[in-house]
Amino acid sequence: MGEDKPTEVTAGEELSKKALKKQQKEAEKAAKKAERKAQVQTQQDAVEQEDVSVGKYGQLTMIQSNEVHKERIFVHVKELNKQLENQTIWLRGRLHTSRAKGKQCFIVLRQQSYTVQGLAAVNEQISKQMIKFISNITKESIIDVEAIVKTVPAVIESCTQKDVEVHIQRIFVVSAAKPQLPLQIEDAARVVNEFDDTGLNIKVNQDTRLDNRILDLRTPANQAIFRVEAAVCKLFRDILTAKGFVEIHTPKIISAASEGGANVFTVSYFKGNAYLAQSPQLYKQMAIAADFDKVFTIGAVFRAEDSNTHRHLTEFVGVDLEMAFKYHYHEVVDTIGQMFTELFKGLRDNYANEIAAVHQQYPVEPFKFLDPPLKLEFSEAIELLAEAGVILGEEDDLSTPDEKLLGKLVKAKYDTDFYILDKYPLAIRPFYTMPDPNNPKASNSYDMFMRGEEIISGAQRIHDPDFLTERAKHHGIDIEKIKSYIDAFRYGCPPHAGGGIGLERVVMLYLGLDNIRKTSMFPRDPKRLTP
Amino acid sequence: MGEDKPTEVTAGEELSKKALKKQQKEAEKAAKKAERKAQVQTQQDAVEQEDVSVGKYGQLTMIQSNEVHKERIFVHVKELNKQLENQTIWLRGRLHTSRAKGKQCFIVLRQQSYTVQGLAAVNEQISKQMIKFISNITKESIIDVEAIVKTVPAVIESCTQKDVEVHIQRIFVVSAAKPQLPLQIEDAARVVNEFDDTGLNIKVNQDTRLDNRILDLRTPANQAIFRVEAAVCKLFRDILTAKGFVEIHTPKIISAASEGGANVFTVSYFKGNAYLAQSPQLYKQMAIAADFDKVFTIGAVFRAEDSNTHRHLTEFVGVDLEMAFKYHYHEVVDTIGQMFTELFKGLRDNYANEIAAVHQQYPVEPFKFLDPPLKLEFSEAIELLAEAGVILGEEDDLSTPDEKLLGKLVKAKYDTDFYILDKYPLAIRPFYTMPDPNNPKASNSYDMFMRGEEIISGAQRIHDPDFLTERAKHHGIDIEKIKSYIDAFRYGCPPHAGGGIGLERVVMLYLGLDNIRKTSMFPRDPKRLTP
Repeated sequence: MGEDKPTEVTAGEELSKKALKKQQKEAEKAAKKAERKAQVQTQQDAVEQEDVSVGKYGQLTMIQSNEVHKERIFVHVKELNKQLENQTIWLRGRLHTSRAKGKQCFIVLRQQSYTVQGLAAVNEQISKQMIKFISNITKESIIDVEAIVKTVPAVIESCTQKDVEVHIQRIFVVSAAKPQLPLQIEDAARVVNEFDDTGLNIKVNQDTRLDNRILDLRTPANQAIFRVEAAVCKLFRDILTAKGFVEIHTPKIISAASEGGANVFTVSYFKGNAYLAQSPQLYKQMAIAADFDKVFTIGAVFRAEDSNTHRHLTEFVGVDLEMAFKYHYHEVVDTIGQMFTELFKGLRDNYANEIAAVHQQYPVEPFKFLDPPLKLEFSEAIELLAEAGVILGEEDDLSTPDEKLLGKLVKAKYDTDFYILDKYPLAIRPFYTMPDPNNPKASNSYDMFMRGEEIISGAQRIHDPDFLTERAKHHGIDIEKIKSYIDAFRYGCPPHAGGGIGLERVVMLYLGLDNIRKTSMFPRDPKRLTP
Repeated sequence: MGEDKPTEVTAGEELSKKALKKQQKEAEKAAKKAERKAQVQTQQDAVEQEDVSVGKYGQLTMIQSNEVHKERIFVHVKELNKQLENQTIWLRGRLHTSRAKGKQCFIVLRQQSYTVQGLAAVNEQISKQMIKFISNITKESIIDVEAIVKTVPAVIESCTQKDVEVHIQRIFVVSAAKPQLPLQIEDAARVVNEFDDTGLNIKVNQDTRLDNRILDLRTPANQAIFRVEAAVCKLFRDILTAKGFVEIHTPKIISAASEGGANVFTVSYFKGNAYLAQSPQLYKQMAIAADFDKVFTIGAVFRAEDSNTHRHLTEFVGVDLEMAFKYHYHEVVDTIGQMFTELFKGLRDNYANEIAAVHQQYPVEPFKFLDPPLKLEFSEAIELLAEAGVILGEEDDLSTPDEKLLGKLVKAKYDTDFYILDKYPLAIRPFYTMPDPNNPKASNSYDMFMRGEEIISGAQRIHDPDFLTERAKHHGIDIEKIKSYIDAFRYGCPPHAGGGIGLERVVMLYLGLDNIRKTSMFPRDPKRLTP
């Protein structure tokens, strides 16, 4: 006990009625003003009498790295189970909820996605004052608890740790939350479309969530979503590295807007102007021309499009790859397809808990895929759509609704949420796309889809500078403006193909979420620049 | 042979003197105009007579994914050894050098950092015309070679593959390089400070290198540098992930310049303005406040400083981490220190070849480190410097020359190129740095050094909103402008510390290079925005 004295404001040893009143008043005041300076002691020192729990509870002074407390054995909430029965442990977590009930106080302590029930009851060790203190701790405050692990007779349905509870011995507030929260974690964590006949089914709208993102991110689903996103990133890198790809870093500030300047953000660069890169494509291709053979890069990509949709951001994380091939760009298509298959397997096999946590709040069909992945040609897609009554010309692009419908048709016919669509019409692809040598209207290009939405667009690039010039002219592009791009191919460049993947889209569609803002930790769109 | 006919322009079967002359002229013309359209056939078809090598050489039409050539067994140059003796294999690489010598032609074929000698000599299969064609291929052109592996009586010193050479059977140009190169790979690859009494020791200056980066990057040292950089990135991530860190992505476009607006790039954002983030610090801290416990992020960081030094870039790759701790920020310092130790071990144990390739061109002492790393307090550094005659006050910052000198003193005394300097003066650190509870002039902050240069700066951050407000006011900062930063701590936040690492600096200093532009693939500084 004594060891805590220097930093902990402890209740007094004797307690008069007057003092109790004063202490209660102080406690209320403390709860109301929990946001005030942590190092201002709550002055319970003044309350000296009759408290058997002196030194066992209170507001810590601000942790300033004064002490170490090596003797305290901290345990993760997720590790709490029957094997720890009767052991004394320390926990640091958030006060998720608390409920005082006569001489008892129940709390739920939360650590990331995991929760455990805690209990304190008045006895020889625990004073009324301590119970009062506990019940006044504001929700979301960070607390240190010393407790004994106890098995429970009946399963605790409301917590992730269902077989045990912890009996509180000591409890200290490390960092107090304001008493008024702009959103409640329970509300933000509520299952969507949950049947509700109580009228109490409060929903938190998206802007409130995003405005208060540090609270919103504390829900189990959000804790899981961003762990899945980290996993997707890790899997992409590990798979590509195993296939011999080299990770590179490409500049975001560029001197010229590569494709004509539309949808590009302008940056003031010392005395001149520069632009934010819409894609690392030129740099990936330069790395190929510089003999890196297979490269990938993961980084911010910027689009100054005033698109306010469920799937557009002005800044997103691009997973871009480029690969030299020997004779046919299908070497690259197959590599990318295989990468996705390995990604889906990796997520399924190693992140089932996180995926389940997301689907707990946002129920959805599990993601289906084939191994090897389904590869269709554009003409086959046109046929499938035609059979469903949607008539497209062979040089028409697919609209977003067409893509959605096609996704459903493919799912019905092939039972896969992922497929590759090859041989897009030449007319609707960028000038640097290699034309199909056998069909003047087609190109060596492809998109790939998850749940009916495009997640990667790619192609064989033209690696011949003269043919590239010819195609640029055909597209009416000013050759002078893309001179450095064309020049990159004048010192020998192997044939190559690649593509760009939107990370947030992959996570959104894999998890079956309805909005890309759910998979961007701090999303940016034309109307949102904060937090 | 026949299978190649559709795509390869082959020499004729009979050859008259006149035709030979014409063919020679054509070959010369081809060499001169190697940059012209790849699909324009070299018209050797017209040279019909007496060439026994018809179909065995020529300029490929542009590879447009028309054919697959599955029968061709491609081998990597680095895999060529005596075990392959007498085997027929295919190679794709660059023509590094060629030398015709009577009826023979020697070439060096390069694939990334690896080289092998190739040989063609006139015989029943190989015509004079074919030798001529080979000798006219421009340097840096990409070629496909069918060849037989042969052991050699004497070691070939000039190639990485010293025990074997390849006897060329067929050779085709996949992508021709312009005959005039703005820099020679041999010059760019030359050992620095190499003793030279021939007067031929041509150096390539840095701007020429960077202006022609796709050529410069083809040197063995550069091929290795960027593989080491990828390795550093991978090791950082793998080590941190193993320690329970979650990778996050933070926005680069931000609404307000967090530290007063100096050194920040402005972006036009639709009808308003925004800024490029100088650091992901606020977002890392928000992730901590949002219960992610330990996070890291790797991404572009922007500094609008007009610093034209060997170690400043306007855009670099930041490896940023932030970690909640229990009671003392040394939990974090020790984690970061351990991370570096593991990084250095990982590089030493798994990337020795790449490191050696860099040091082949840029000789330097190998990097030394201690396990666990050396940790000094700022006051000890002041003493060391004082012993060396440099007198600093206890609240002075270290200048770059002080840091360099200190690095030398530490190396001499402790034999390490990496160390941690803890307890920086409070006065010289940002407002959000936690003061030392025991010394009003010190703070809970640290820098870490490699070869005497700072590579990470970090601290315990103030997690208490009221104390943060007080410290900001003390620094004369307008509280309104940092309101959202302060508010991030109002809903409970654990004590935490972290730091930001410059990736390019780590690679530069680990390898002992003299300029950060050597470790940024496409560097950005106040004067360089291209390529």
